[in-house]
Amino acid sequence: MPPAAFRPLGSRRVLVHGDGLLVDTVLDEVVRACLEHGGRVWRSPTWDVEVDLVLALRDAGPLANATAEATRLGVTPAADGAAHGRLADEEFLLTRTDGVTVVLADTPAGLLYGLFHTVRLGAAAFDDDRAPERHRPALHLRALDHWDNVEVHPVSGQVERGYAGGSIFWRDGAARDLTRVREYRRLLAAVGINAVTVNNVNVHGEAARLLTDRLDDVVAIAEVLRPYGIRVHLAVSFAAPVVLGGLPTADPLDERVRAWWADATHRVYRRIPDFGGFLVKADSEGQPGPFTYGRDHADGANLLAEALAPHGGVVRWRTFVYNHHQDWRDRSTDRARAAYDHFVPLDGRFRTNVILQVKFGPVDFQVREPVSPLIAAMPATRLAVEIQATQEYTGQQRHACYLAPCWSEVLRFEPWGPDDRTVADVVAGKPASRRTEERRTVPGGRLVRPEGGFLGPAFAPDGGLLGPAGGAGPGGGVAGPGNRPGGGPGGSAGHRAGHGGGLVAVANVGDDPFWTGHPLAQANLYAVGRLAWDPRLTADALLDEWIDLTFPPSTVDDPELVRRTVHAVLDDSWRTYERYTAPLGVGFMVRPGHHYGPDVDGYEYTPWGTYHFADRDGVGVDRTPATGTGFTGQYPQPWSDAYESLERCPDELLLFFHHVPYGHVLHSGSTVVQHIYDTHFAGVEQVRRMRAQWRELAGRIDPAWYERVRERLDEQLRSAVEWRDQVNTYFFRKSGVPDAQGRRIY
Amino acid sequence: MPPAAFRPLGSRRVLVHGDGLLVDTVLDEVVRACLEHGGRVWRSPTWDVEVDLVLALRDAGPLANATAEATRLGVTPAADGAAHGRLADEEFLLTRTDGVTVVLADTPAGLLYGLFHTVRLGAAAFDDDRAPERHRPALHLRALDHWDNVEVHPVSGQVERGYAGGSIFWRDGAARDLTRVREYRRLLAAVGINAVTVNNVNVHGEAARLLTDRLDDVVAIAEVLRPYGIRVHLAVSFAAPVVLGGLPTADPLDERVRAWWADATHRVYRRIPDFGGFLVKADSEGQPGPFTYGRDHADGANLLAEALAPHGGVVRWRTFVYNHHQDWRDRSTDRARAAYDHFVPLDGRFRTNVILQVKFGPVDFQVREPVSPLIAAMPATRLAVEIQATQEYTGQQRHACYLAPCWSEVLRFEPWGPDDRTVADVVAGKPASRRTEERRTVPGGRLVRPEGGFLGPAFAPDGGLLGPAGGAGPGGGVAGPGNRPGGGPGGSAGHRAGHGGGLVAVANVGDDPFWTGHPLAQANLYAVGRLAWDPRLTADALLDEWIDLTFPPSTVDDPELVRRTVHAVLDDSWRTYERYTAPLGVGFMVRPGHHYGPDVDGYEYTPWGTYHFADRDGVGVDRTPATGTGFTGQYPQPWSDAYESLERCPDELLLFFHHVPYGHVLHSGSTVVQHIYDTHFAGVEQVRRMRAQWRELAGRIDPAWYERVRERLDEQLRSAVEWRDQVNTYFFRKSGVPDAQGRRIY
Repeated sequence: MPPAAFRPLGSRRVLVHGDGLLVDTVLDEVVRACLEHGGRVWRSPTWDVEVDLVLALRDAGPLANATAEATRLGVTPAADGAAHGRLADEEFLLTRTDGVTVVLADTPAGLLYGLFHTVRLGAAAFDDDRAPERHRPALHLRALDHWDNVEVHPVSGQVERGYAGGSIFWRDGAARDLTRVREYRRLLAAVGINAVTVNNVNVHGEAARLLTDRLDDVVAIAEVLRPYGIRVHLAVSFAAPVVLGGLPTADPLDERVRAWWADATHRVYRRIPDFGGFLVKADSEGQPGPFTYGRDHADGANLLAEALAPHGGVVRWRTFVYNHHQDWRDRSTDRARAAYDHFVPLDGRFRTNVILQVKFGPVDFQVREPVSPLIAAMPATRLAVEIQATQEYTGQQRHACYLAPCWSEVLRFEPWGPDDRTVADVVAGKPASRRTEERRTVPGGRLVRPEGGFLGPAFAPDGGLLGPAGGAGPGGGVAGPGNRPGGGPGGSAGHRAGHGGGLVAVANVGDDPFWTGHPLAQANLYAVGRLAWDPRLTADALLDEWIDLTFPPSTVDDPELVRRTVHAVLDDSWRTYERYTAPLGVGFMVRPGHHYGPDVDGYEYTPWGTYHFADRDGVGVDRTPATGTGFTGQYPQPWSDAYESLERCPDELLLFFHHVPYGHVLHSGSTVVQHIYDTHFAGVEQVRRMRAQWRELAGRIDPAWYERVRERLDEQLRSAVEWRDQVNTYFFRKSGVPDAQGRRIY
Repeated sequence: MPPAAFRPLGSRRVLVHGDGLLVDTVLDEVVRACLEHGGRVWRSPTWDVEVDLVLALRDAGPLANATAEATRLGVTPAADGAAHGRLADEEFLLTRTDGVTVVLADTPAGLLYGLFHTVRLGAAAFDDDRAPERHRPALHLRALDHWDNVEVHPVSGQVERGYAGGSIFWRDGAARDLTRVREYRRLLAAVGINAVTVNNVNVHGEAARLLTDRLDDVVAIAEVLRPYGIRVHLAVSFAAPVVLGGLPTADPLDERVRAWWADATHRVYRRIPDFGGFLVKADSEGQPGPFTYGRDHADGANLLAEALAPHGGVVRWRTFVYNHHQDWRDRSTDRARAAYDHFVPLDGRFRTNVILQVKFGPVDFQVREPVSPLIAAMPATRLAVEIQATQEYTGQQRHACYLAPCWSEVLRFEPWGPDDRTVADVVAGKPASRRTEERRTVPGGRLVRPEGGFLGPAFAPDGGLLGPAGGAGPGGGVAGPGNRPGGGPGGSAGHRAGHGGGLVAVANVGDDPFWTGHPLAQANLYAVGRLAWDPRLTADALLDEWIDLTFPPSTVDDPELVRRTVHAVLDDSWRTYERYTAPLGVGFMVRPGHHYGPDVDGYEYTPWGTYHFADRDGVGVDRTPATGTGFTGQYPQPWSDAYESLERCPDELLLFFHHVPYGHVLHSGSTVVQHIYDTHFAGVEQVRRMRAQWRELAGRIDPAWYERVRERLDEQLRSAVEWRDQVNTYFFRKSGVPDAQGRRIY
């Protein structure tokens, strides 16, 4: 959000009412805008001036001299406590009458979000009258995980999977000067992010010590983020009691280990009272975990949860657990099954402040995956869905690939079929409908393991540790009562037990001047925060918001051309990327290790469990129970049957679920191999168009911005051609089937 | 060569006669042996004691009180100057009569090599009488190039392509303590190496500065190596005048550039009078070179040669030049052609102290390649052949792969057919026979470029810059008069103009306790030095020598079992490695980047120019003039025709030269695809046998030695199984042809 976005706000007369750290922030932001654009601002307990905008915290008490109008609007609460009822934490109320726009909140965080909402509205916030609207986030945890290494890692560098320069937190083992973070926090709060993990989930060397003797570094970051309602989280090593504490074990059931974690956590909270919690990658890709001690993930997660509970923190425990030493010869093992197989049996055993963090798909952030069946299979556990803003597998911020359409599909996906809860509902903590419950408990249902054994109803017999969550509010898929007293000291209480786990994105930000390397990748960061606030927002509407904030209409000479062009480049960019890369949901085919550019067989004979099994006759992974790995049986109906059926499986996921001959005819009418050729030729042509479209903005926007995008689009075209030719050549050499249109294949 | 190897020498009475640095070394070695094993040693100008061994430098003058026998033996030269004629530099004479073994030399280096030869003979040196034998090296330059980085490189580490721990010269940007080098020099001199390049041919960062302000580091190494007759060489950056000298250009024809190199070189020689010369990788894989300035490789090499000439140094200029940004779609470009195409037109233009250093094969150190045609195509240029002791593509010192049989094949290869010069003759500087000359100058011969144009006789019209070289001496393929006065100050004059270019190996040594990671890889280091001394030695005989020195018969309880076992493991290990890796000369199929383990398509769609073109019908690279790249036309007859002919092409190179259907029948009677299956199954079984054979040595040799080899053989088996299964599966999936024996393919 560039300073110019504040222009419509800055030229107004603004009254700020209330006290507290985050209200100071609101005031600072307004002052900053007014200084730049000529408005005026008052911080006042009285309403005795002519104003355009009131930002008032009702908890701060009634405004003296308030007009009758103000009372009617709720700025001065009625005797019964509050007009419009009590607002939840982070919630705000917006209205406009008689030339005054009013933002009300009952917590400082709500006021801050109200301010940024007003900025987002721009001039429209000061147009016609506006009936009172309540805004509150659908998801309470809206987090960014930075995979930033404290030290430069010999392979993954300063930022693992970072495509936007160095880390904004760390450089060469030391904490950086936090000047940049002071701007970053504004960006984050403006999009609605309220939690940031400051170090990589792979916790190596110095990073482990952030928990103890390098806590000062974390304190410093927390102090910068706190005024913007953002809590710091820390990725920790499960082996910390051994590595840092000198204990002989990290066994979660060992009393010394429990005491060590309790003490370490207590020390963290003494310095960072609003500390958010721990993020853990355990027993995954070589990271330590409870398996070493014969314990399971519930034992491990509960250990940390117990230490955090007295302080109101959560532990986010990643379900990205699989065998990364798989034998490619063994077709019965299926990495896609792993998270479900590991975690479903544990449902009901996790403490209320444990959040299981589930990658949106069953494998690993591919451009197209089915939604993870785990999300529908743990009713007694808080779940967060994890998406990847950093474009590890989607062009590494050298390709324009607007991911909001993908994430939106995921969040709107209905695991139990139409008219039931969506994924967004699940991570918001919305309880199961009666219908879902009935389906789940039908014995002999489809949740069958390939070995033939049943998975009984995953709902724990005792109802689980979670009490019933509150109903969804009118403003969104918001669950939970929201009125538990005493949020964190920073005013943001978003991490409380009793809610769903929220939305987490792997951050795509670095110290790049454009934040995200590819300037257009900012739109992905924007979408993360906004979708977490309201998962029903469309990708199209989000892009409009982002365009308005990035190129405020008053600052460019042809705002409609800019809008049209950015839409033309980004709207279909995710599907375009899909077209020229791995086809029909089969995934991977990237260069091993760095994951940029094509290598069709790159992972085919590796231990990583990501195969396509192409031979001279066909391609794809048979995941049906009858002849394959049985993964489709992890889905509830109707998806279990749909995915299992060769006829009903959606085209775009066909090769994820089935191994088919090259001549298999898709719903589209094309054969698989002709579809591969066609989409790859088409994808390249689309990139060529994107590149041409962008050139229309030459001379119309900031030249540095323009140039950076232009050069990246050149690279995207080069890379797309490479993808097209390698994938097409690979399948032509293997299948021997010529392109029906006789185009050039090598 | 462990101390025990000196035992037979150490228990004797030894007289050393002569002066000079290298004679001091001879004395030191004898004293060390005697101290350890109880012998006695005299350094004396008189022969008045009873001795078993005399090591005498004839140049030091006659031995006083010499017996008549001594005079007869030549220890006291006759009035005409020397019995047995003048000995060349590094040459020695060995004889034994009446219980006295006598080693004579006319230069200190000869005496040193005579000493090590005596050690190699062991007890046999003191057995029966021995008629006088003259020993001199066939090749004057016998060099090891260390691809050691001064600083740790982010990708290639401290040693690029190093599999034996860190560098023995550098650590983390600094020069190391040279204690280890003091042992290393003994090892090198014992095998006959007389030149060492101390830094990587890819000259990055700090390494460039070794030439100038970090020269002290090189001086220190040179001082350690000098007493053992080993000259230091330095890999330099062609851009040094810009990077180090601050000049605006490195144009080889620019006077300032010439002056800069002259001055820099002069400064080097002021500190290191016996400095060997420069090694240059120019215009190759991103290294700077003369192309930047529109100059060619002759201009570039001559620039450095001019600077070195006054000091007697040589520039070794690598011919490993090719387009590493090749488009895999373009089948007409052929990396195998590149060295010839670049350098043959320049024949005759290089100064006499330029050596072109040619990789033995046309691509890059694969387990099987044809000999580079360049070696037969530059009669007016000094050529060295480069081999790779470090096992980049041959198992990285985790696999036992004794390479002497490969190198021996290369050195014995007859580019012009039977009864003409060998590759060893060419790099020894042996001039062309009349027959070869006649063939070369026949117009309309086979040296045809694919574009159809002729390459006229490559011999330059003016006869080239080289005068006629001397005839081969009787003791080996030694060329050159060898009696030019004034060798280098260190006593070793092996780098003079007028000789061939010698043999160069990329070093396989690091700071590993066993020197080479895999203890059995020491045999490769041994073979490098010994083959450079005498290319006619057989791999079998060399291995015997190495076994005797490594496990001296008096130190192991069953020397014959040790000998048998080491032979059983190593004799066929090169062909075994070939069997389970890339088939029939097609090469690569390794994991890109690190080059360990299989990845059949790993390089197939890369810019590196190394492809196999496998499709569902066949595999291989068509390099014929009629339908392919025309590379076979770079060979003289009879090889040009032989390689071009599908019928006459040797099986083991078939896929290097031809693209054939999977059903093509080899000379062996097998089809190509069945051959692939058979050799891959057989290769694994051979490794299994090697592993079993080695276990027979348990308890019979040094346990650390035994264990290291045992664990590496376990890994070799694991890796061979992986190779077998990936290669077989790849070709089965592609061809659809089942294994005739019905073995398991995935």
